[in-house]
Amino acid sequence: MKLAMLNDRIVPIGELDPIYFDRGIYFGDGVYEVLRSYGGKLFALDEHLERFANSLAAIRITSIEIDQIRDRVERAFNATGLANAKIYFHVTRGSAPRNHVWNADLEPNFFLTVSEIVDNPAEKEKGITVCTHPDWRWKRCDIKSLNLLANVLARQEATDKGCDEAILVDEAGLITEGAGSCFFAVLGETVQTAPLTANVLPSITRQFVIKAARNLGLTVNEESMTPQQAAGADELFIAVTTKDIVPIVKFDDAVIGNGTPGPRTKAIHDEFLKFTV
Amino acid sequence: MKLAMLNDRIVPIGELDPIYFDRGIYFGDGVYEVLRSYGGKLFALDEHLERFANSLAAIRITSIEIDQIRDRVERAFNATGLANAKIYFHVTRGSAPRNHVWNADLEPNFFLTVSEIVDNPAEKEKGITVCTHPDWRWKRCDIKSLNLLANVLARQEATDKGCDEAILVDEAGLITEGAGSCFFAVLGETVQTAPLTANVLPSITRQFVIKAARNLGLTVNEESMTPQQAAGADELFIAVTTKDIVPIVKFDDAVIGNGTPGPRTKAIHDEFLKFTV
Repeated sequence: MKLAMLNDRIVPIGELDPIYFDRGIYFGDGVYEVLRSYGGKLFALDEHLERFANSLAAIRITSIEIDQIRDRVERAFNATGLANAKIYFHVTRGSAPRNHVWNADLEPNFFLTVSEIVDNPAEKEKGITVCTHPDWRWKRCDIKSLNLLANVLARQEATDKGCDEAILVDEAGLITEGAGSCFFAVLGETVQTAPLTANVLPSITRQFVIKAARNLGLTVNEESMTPQQAAGADELFIAVTTKDIVPIVKFDDAVIGNGTPGPRTKAIHDEFLKFTV
Repeated sequence: MKLAMLNDRIVPIGELDPIYFDRGIYFGDGVYEVLRSYGGKLFALDEHLERFANSLAAIRITSIEIDQIRDRVERAFNATGLANAKIYFHVTRGSAPRNHVWNADLEPNFFLTVSEIVDNPAEKEKGITVCTHPDWRWKRCDIKSLNLLANVLARQEATDKGCDEAILVDEAGLITEGAGSCFFAVLGETVQTAPLTANVLPSITRQFVIKAARNLGLTVNEESMTPQQAAGADELFIAVTTKDIVPIVKFDDAVIGNGTPGPRTKAIHDEFLKFTV
């Protein structure tokens, strides 16, 4: 490589931080996790690390140990002293001149941030609105990768329409999940959500929502639904690590239930919170 | 944000270069181009800039001028004095704390590198081998975005099998394009390639290949083909900016023609090179 340019400035290659050649930025060649703590305690760390190991294996990043990542997460979290923390981390395949094919001896890059979660009780009390958007994502959404442009564009379009989340609909006309969340419907005594396939992220919060619903005696139906079916549900909610469970009161133009969060969503949320103590 | 961690090291947020918060790495929220020069002259700069403008518009990055990019490309290229240069550049939406939704006032980040192209005449004389791979990419491959993990995984798998390129096959069983190239077949007096849809990059080299083929009196058929049809073609080749036209002599297990580059591919290549002078 002869030279680089950062905005208007020509820079000798040797002066650049290797981060500029991170395969994460060239290709999105990396995977990530987001986890949180409740009241000073990390929630579902094992589950997040297990999923992260699966993501790493799926994209064939092999030279990083999960125990090393566990140690880093705990060390960074403890250093902040936060009660309610959001921990984001990613591993990319490493820094190298741009080439689709990788060298087996690349050193992965690890990056982590910790920030404070400020709860938004109004969102849970009033519920949120969601808009549907075509699911433009790739065919391996079971991998939590850094290729998230489809999610970004869908969420932004939802925001521009005054919605809080985009609900993605695939080419078969079925809901997969939210742009950054898992999607659930309550129909009578049944809680329904899409099954785990290559098109859906195996959400950790989803696992605990299902457990909470079963504890309450509800039936869990892992089956895809259409937007029309969702719009006619008794209750809807999203599940996402940073906010756990958030009720949906409007789905595109359809008001859900009586336009306020439903009782089963609230019961599932209460049951869910027991796991976090 | 409270703190960050780079590999094993805890770092105060304020000490980090904003590149660490580039939406390019968090989301692949950016678009890129690759162009080249032949003998000291940039090839198809206007066409590349026009495509880049389309990519920027498609992902709604609006606060960067194409003339500014043209100026930077020319300035960096001239500074190297290279005859045969590869110029890579990308623009990301900017650096900000991680959030799918963007702020309208973000400053885009521009990054460019120039490197020397060393031609590989053996590749053109002997031809290359290709392997098919499922097309796992997202539904907007007409946008030249930084979400390239599907391309990376396909190309690496092809490399592991001893192939030089992966040819992507969609769920309908039709070839879209190569992981990093456009794919062509020659059948008699006809040159065939996939039509430009949302699943295919509008390759600049493709434009000139089509022009070259027509100059030679060949018919151009923009129609998708199956791997079976490709395996039975008289000649196959890929087209890609950095290498222009490279003949394919093996497609999965099928030897193409007599296992050496075909005469029409060579004629198209010769005709193509006239455009670069």
